[in-house]
Amino acid sequence: MARKPEAVAVPSIGALDRSAGQLGRQLAQSLRDAVRRGDLKPGEVLPSTRTLAASLQVARGTVVEAFEQLIAEGFLQAQPGAATRVAQSLAPAAAEARSAHGARTSSVKAAPISRRAQLFAQVARQFAAVPQAPFAVSVPVGPAAPDDIWRRLGNRLRARGPGAPASYGDPQGARELREAIADYVRRSRSVRCDAEQVIITSGTQQGLYLSCQVLLDADTPAWVEDPAYRGITAILESTGRPERMIRVPVDAEGLDVHEGIRRGPHAKAAFVTSSHQYPLGMPLSMARRNALLTWARANDAWVVEDDYDSELRYAGHPFPSLQGLAPDRVIYLGTFSKILYPSLRLGYAVVPENFVDAFCGARVLMDRNPPNADQHVLAAFIAEGHLDRHIRRIRGVYAERRACIIGTIERLLPKHIAWLQPSDQGMHLVLWLAAGIDDRQVASLAIESGVVVRAVSPMYSGGNGPMGLILGLGGFSDEEIESAAQRLAASIESIASVANVTTAARGANRRKRKNTRTT
Amino acid sequence: MARKPEAVAVPSIGALDRSAGQLGRQLAQSLRDAVRRGDLKPGEVLPSTRTLAASLQVARGTVVEAFEQLIAEGFLQAQPGAATRVAQSLAPAAAEARSAHGARTSSVKAAPISRRAQLFAQVARQFAAVPQAPFAVSVPVGPAAPDDIWRRLGNRLRARGPGAPASYGDPQGARELREAIADYVRRSRSVRCDAEQVIITSGTQQGLYLSCQVLLDADTPAWVEDPAYRGITAILESTGRPERMIRVPVDAEGLDVHEGIRRGPHAKAAFVTSSHQYPLGMPLSMARRNALLTWARANDAWVVEDDYDSELRYAGHPFPSLQGLAPDRVIYLGTFSKILYPSLRLGYAVVPENFVDAFCGARVLMDRNPPNADQHVLAAFIAEGHLDRHIRRIRGVYAERRACIIGTIERLLPKHIAWLQPSDQGMHLVLWLAAGIDDRQVASLAIESGVVVRAVSPMYSGGNGPMGLILGLGGFSDEEIESAAQRLAASIESIASVANVTTAARGANRRKRKNTRTT
Repeated sequence: MARKPEAVAVPSIGALDRSAGQLGRQLAQSLRDAVRRGDLKPGEVLPSTRTLAASLQVARGTVVEAFEQLIAEGFLQAQPGAATRVAQSLAPAAAEARSAHGARTSSVKAAPISRRAQLFAQVARQFAAVPQAPFAVSVPVGPAAPDDIWRRLGNRLRARGPGAPASYGDPQGARELREAIADYVRRSRSVRCDAEQVIITSGTQQGLYLSCQVLLDADTPAWVEDPAYRGITAILESTGRPERMIRVPVDAEGLDVHEGIRRGPHAKAAFVTSSHQYPLGMPLSMARRNALLTWARANDAWVVEDDYDSELRYAGHPFPSLQGLAPDRVIYLGTFSKILYPSLRLGYAVVPENFVDAFCGARVLMDRNPPNADQHVLAAFIAEGHLDRHIRRIRGVYAERRACIIGTIERLLPKHIAWLQPSDQGMHLVLWLAAGIDDRQVASLAIESGVVVRAVSPMYSGGNGPMGLILGLGGFSDEEIESAAQRLAASIESIASVANVTTAARGANRRKRKNTRTT
Repeated sequence: MARKPEAVAVPSIGALDRSAGQLGRQLAQSLRDAVRRGDLKPGEVLPSTRTLAASLQVARGTVVEAFEQLIAEGFLQAQPGAATRVAQSLAPAAAEARSAHGARTSSVKAAPISRRAQLFAQVARQFAAVPQAPFAVSVPVGPAAPDDIWRRLGNRLRARGPGAPASYGDPQGARELREAIADYVRRSRSVRCDAEQVIITSGTQQGLYLSCQVLLDADTPAWVEDPAYRGITAILESTGRPERMIRVPVDAEGLDVHEGIRRGPHAKAAFVTSSHQYPLGMPLSMARRNALLTWARANDAWVVEDDYDSELRYAGHPFPSLQGLAPDRVIYLGTFSKILYPSLRLGYAVVPENFVDAFCGARVLMDRNPPNADQHVLAAFIAEGHLDRHIRRIRGVYAERRACIIGTIERLLPKHIAWLQPSDQGMHLVLWLAAGIDDRQVASLAIESGVVVRAVSPMYSGGNGPMGLILGLGGFSDEEIESAAQRLAASIESIASVANVTTAARGANRRKRKNTRTT
């Protein structure tokens, strides 16, 4: 393009969006960009404000405003009686900017500096949002969907009083909600606490994170179940000392405490899903509960009890919580993601009194305090008895959905290819796959047809566990479950056939199984 | 109490709350507690269900239910034709439980095991919730309070569609909100990004935490301003390697980049409050911006730009963001806590494309994903133009509140005792105190009279900075400000007199200052 010796033409700055307003600001940004790209060079003379205004078809005042802003910023220099120039002092920065601009592609491709950043990126892929379709866990649609009470309470409590928009709040959470939760866990889970020991969290994940922060130093060993929830193993891996995570196998009675003591006698914390082992589903037996607490007391260690879905029990009584057996040795974690709505991001930790301040402080550093409004809606929902009624209702809903999934899966899939793990509680089922059928491949194929399942084998130490799938419960209809189960069966059989696992016995197996119950 | 040889009497189990229902469960818990306390001993024989039902005045079925539950748990043992006994296998655990019970007081007093737990407890005290009274920062009451639009949008969007209760969401945040924010920061702050680079956070604090997680390994050095926001210094201290935090002094142009390079040339991140240095208030000059970015490019380092209150500018144009000057070198952090409501806990990070996954993964480990509903309310609030109108409105409100505070403080306090730091933007003012007047003591005394101020000196390296107070802006009335300022002045003068700082010149000073403007 033509350049006059005295004033440069700057075509790129002509791209003003008149509908967006603030033309002076737009022009200033265009001029900055032009300097950065090298269209305008340090020392070059700009057109007069009159000339530029005419060429851009804007008011002269708009150009004056932009120039004055850039002069204030040091981008441009003006001398009385002389033309406005691009500031000489920008030379090194502008040159740097150009080289950075030219190098941007490679810079974007460069690995993040932190070793942990790579692990975090992997976690993001593992926890990517999934469609709200079968068999995603805890999808409150249809009969499990919110009722009008939640909405009416919300509209009322947000309008005025403590639920209305406000300033910063208590890092520990709203007192009304802590009192309602303390009362709820005392009567429903034999947890022994008062409201001062309750810390409102953004769900179980934050409870696990806070527990790691407060209970463990960087090199402190801790027991984690094998298999386990990825949300806890990834936290401990992210510290860069994977050797401190001692995986302890699980058998029919849950965590094998004897084996834990053999592998890591001096661990300072044990993370355990006591009501409903994640992912396998068995409760921790009473003998194991006693053994675990005996070890913890003798070793001055803490037990983190992740009680993520104990409310959803379809037969029999629950065991009392570990916390109720040893309140000074247990961090008890609960959540409303399973019994209410995951989208609320509300849960709680019940901690020994001497840990309350430390948990609050660790929480302050992560996000200051929980959001206000839904805490008050939830407090009223619990205090007015709605939560108990809601749990009774969805327990029925999920029991039906569960029976529908079991019936459908057993009808569609031969048992030598895939079989359900017996269990009588929780928000998910485990569907085991015959050896050779890769659960990760099945999960990838299934999601392509809109079916959400999670692979079990990566939840084992080293990612080398038996092949299986997590089937979560949601409020889906019989038809949605039937359709999804058919697509899932097709995915499993497709991977099985590639792996040369025969599906020929299917018809015989289906007939044979008519009189059996798996769970 | 009397004990028959064959069946023990267990008075403590009589405490059943008939109004609470679930008598079987209550009885089971009472029996467990009795075993734990030693009222019932391993091997002891229980009364028959008939006898116990009669003595407790409950249905026999209730006692049978409780016994069956405890037999299932292993607490009790039943043999056909023989009485039910407390299980012998409980012996060691019960003994342990008793000794733990007896030892509880000393256990509760024991120090937490983690070295970090002590720091966290200290942080909790520093960030304890304060009254929503002058001069707490960002208190949306009175004329700064929410208007009906926010409530109406909320009620509509929570009822159906994406704002209604739902399952787990995208760790990166709702797309509608990310698009609205990308558009907002592009036009208001010259931030160059698209929605794919925006990560919804629970406010600036989470943005700082995520930046530390992703950008830094445990031993990576980082620059932090001196003085600085306690929320960033405490994160870096909590890693247990305080030496990696390089404090860089601030002068009239903001962060002293030259001094930073001298003290920590190989740092991998610089945390900077570029628009409005926290707490001192000056913007980072254009020359310093260029120098900082030049250093970052040359050193393969990142700049974390904490732009916490740039919208509240009362005079002049803002500088363009650092992010707009070097999008591939800057993590840009923004929040709605200052311009909207802290209680929402909603903010954002704008990150280079190659960091998006890592930030999302680090966020997953902390709390999975942001709560759903308010993201959609906020997205609509921005997209429909309400945010821009709200900012224009509160800019006027806070400009007035600010002028009122300045006028009142200058009238009440002699300038040789306390004087305001000039500044033309932000949600707070700094009131400097004469040497010898301890700002921590003033803050403690003020809170006793219901006045909220924060001490400045602890924000400096080593906690040894000059004495000053942060006075935050809120929507308080002239009368509330006048009353609080009087109580604050009394607190300052009380500490000053103890410290032998003379207040005698007050009258002369007040007269002399009538024609001056501090800001």
